[in-house]
Amino acid sequence: MESTAIAADARKRRTKPAIIDCDIHIPSVKEEMLAYLPRHYREQIDTFGMRLPSQGAMYLNGAKGGRMQEQQFPNDGKTSSILEHFRREHLDKYNIAHAILTGIGDYGINTTPDPDYAAALCRASNDYGIDHFVSQDPRVKSSIMIPKQDPLLAAQEIDRVGDHPGLVQVIVSNGAEKPYGNRFYYPIYEACVRHNLPFAVHVSMEGIGINHPPTGAGHVNHYIEYRMARTQIMMAHLASMIFEGVFVRFPELKFVMIEAGMLWVAPYMWRMDQDWKALRSQTPWVSEPPSEYVRRHVRFTSQPLELPPDNAMFEPMMNAIFADTNLLFASDYPHWDFDSPLKAFPKMSAERRERIFYANAAELYGLPSPAGQEASE
Amino acid sequence: MESTAIAADARKRRTKPAIIDCDIHIPSVKEEMLAYLPRHYREQIDTFGMRLPSQGAMYLNGAKGGRMQEQQFPNDGKTSSILEHFRREHLDKYNIAHAILTGIGDYGINTTPDPDYAAALCRASNDYGIDHFVSQDPRVKSSIMIPKQDPLLAAQEIDRVGDHPGLVQVIVSNGAEKPYGNRFYYPIYEACVRHNLPFAVHVSMEGIGINHPPTGAGHVNHYIEYRMARTQIMMAHLASMIFEGVFVRFPELKFVMIEAGMLWVAPYMWRMDQDWKALRSQTPWVSEPPSEYVRRHVRFTSQPLELPPDNAMFEPMMNAIFADTNLLFASDYPHWDFDSPLKAFPKMSAERRERIFYANAAELYGLPSPAGQEASE
Repeated sequence: MESTAIAADARKRRTKPAIIDCDIHIPSVKEEMLAYLPRHYREQIDTFGMRLPSQGAMYLNGAKGGRMQEQQFPNDGKTSSILEHFRREHLDKYNIAHAILTGIGDYGINTTPDPDYAAALCRASNDYGIDHFVSQDPRVKSSIMIPKQDPLLAAQEIDRVGDHPGLVQVIVSNGAEKPYGNRFYYPIYEACVRHNLPFAVHVSMEGIGINHPPTGAGHVNHYIEYRMARTQIMMAHLASMIFEGVFVRFPELKFVMIEAGMLWVAPYMWRMDQDWKALRSQTPWVSEPPSEYVRRHVRFTSQPLELPPDNAMFEPMMNAIFADTNLLFASDYPHWDFDSPLKAFPKMSAERRERIFYANAAELYGLPSPAGQEASE
Repeated sequence: MESTAIAADARKRRTKPAIIDCDIHIPSVKEEMLAYLPRHYREQIDTFGMRLPSQGAMYLNGAKGGRMQEQQFPNDGKTSSILEHFRREHLDKYNIAHAILTGIGDYGINTTPDPDYAAALCRASNDYGIDHFVSQDPRVKSSIMIPKQDPLLAAQEIDRVGDHPGLVQVIVSNGAEKPYGNRFYYPIYEACVRHNLPFAVHVSMEGIGINHPPTGAGHVNHYIEYRMARTQIMMAHLASMIFEGVFVRFPELKFVMIEAGMLWVAPYMWRMDQDWKALRSQTPWVSEPPSEYVRRHVRFTSQPLELPPDNAMFEPMMNAIFADTNLLFASDYPHWDFDSPLKAFPKMSAERRERIFYANAAELYGLPSPAGQEASE
């Protein structure tokens, strides 16, 4: 590119509003990550392989490797080359002020029956992420992988790395042994609160490994049904968090639902509120309407963005899901169902766009305001 | 009541528009029903009890016996006394032209591991229902219970009673071993089509007996979470029916979702349509948008009626779920969360009300039009 073209490109970029992208999956380099594992686990892997359950063993994905065709990452065995590609093709291209990596490595870690192996892989994944991603670019933030099979071990891992400024939340797979409101998980929430970290659930691993079948009616046969089932499980987690009283017991806790859709939240809240009015004597610790806990404690990402066919319903639905405070933009880069920051949403007010594309996430993760961000450039 | 009062009451009743109520649970008299069982099963029950899994063993209900407080049915051991109470307290009171009984007996029949016992109980339930309910009042229609654990036995039962004019649909519990689109169930759909009967799923027995846990994240702890989970399972059945191609293979089949809510259908269709556009090459037999199969093949009942807190969204949401063709009024009489035909819905146009309270169900079940109904009185 000629220098005048580069300058023009830079000017153009500056005019784009800054964005926080809340769901990013840059590929990791397995060999560089495994170097962080204790030697006996590295030897086991050399001999027996990774032995992690995988979705790909059961369901198709939407594209090869789950990625957009044009995203051909460098394959020279260096994480730095991948990060370089990511900076150019995503951070710079869309003026992403902060990118939240959502799970370095493999959510299969959350589904192995061996909690000690899971803990070792989480430590390796988190340390690798700190060294190779978040320490390399101040725009890149990451999520803490935890061995949720053993909440006490998980809390240890949160305590170990939870104060690193580049790690902005704790993350687990949506596939689970118990709904996340269950008291089994409370040591994790105690640790989240100790380190002021949101608890995030990302769709993945439903019905895989040690998890239950992905629906209450058992296994599904096709990937598209599986995608629908993921949202159903997120619904179950949300009801569990609310009615078990997690937000009463942990009033500082934020719960982030990633890649499970957004518009369903409206009728789901309406139904929860209605049932709560009739049944609240059975869960007396839930002292406010369920929608109030959603409004105050729950955030959700936009991708894959679902839109009403009648555009007149878009604004009312956005209002109904508290989009101006609770919705976080996510592209899911580099996956095949990527939502472009430039094209994903219909026309919205500048204020609403700024909330969804920046301010809601900045407040959630304690990141600088857009103004601060621009000033630092 | 004096005769003038009776006449006034009758006049008042005639002025109320006729209603088809699509979800009714009149209690049955166990002894009278069990008389229809073969002797060896009656002896087993005398010795060992009913041995049917039950929700009540795991979850609270909203009220004692699940019923409205004021519905104290006669307890003289006669079905005729119960029917008499039902006529007075529901059919006459609200001018119900047709009441669809949704499962006489116990959905636990659908969750026992013994398919032959299930088949015997279904036969007894269906014969008892014919003799003691539908033959006693032309307003009362009923649903065919089937031993869905064994679809070939289930088809035999549909063939045995499926042409009785008082039995208007086949019914099963929402709790299931496999999602209902699975080919395992095709003998049931072949039999439904042979007898021109809709296939209805009523919420019940999720996570009970031979069924999977009620969510993809396992068991839930409270009744209100359980109620939310029921809708999630219905969602899974719906996606399964569509993407497995049930409506392509059985183009005459209608699928009725009972007591699982209604407004969720809108965002669920939007998401299915969107994913289908991107992924339709994986299920090429699904040649139309999922919402089109919903519009043509799926019906759903209104109770428990969920309403948007912002009344301005009511009409758009009703349009979005195809209420004028696909929504069926249901009261769920006599359950504690009964929706009164007089009070359940906000203000609607007379045309819409007539579709939801009568015409949609009349078309689905082949019942006389309101005019015909009035003429026959």
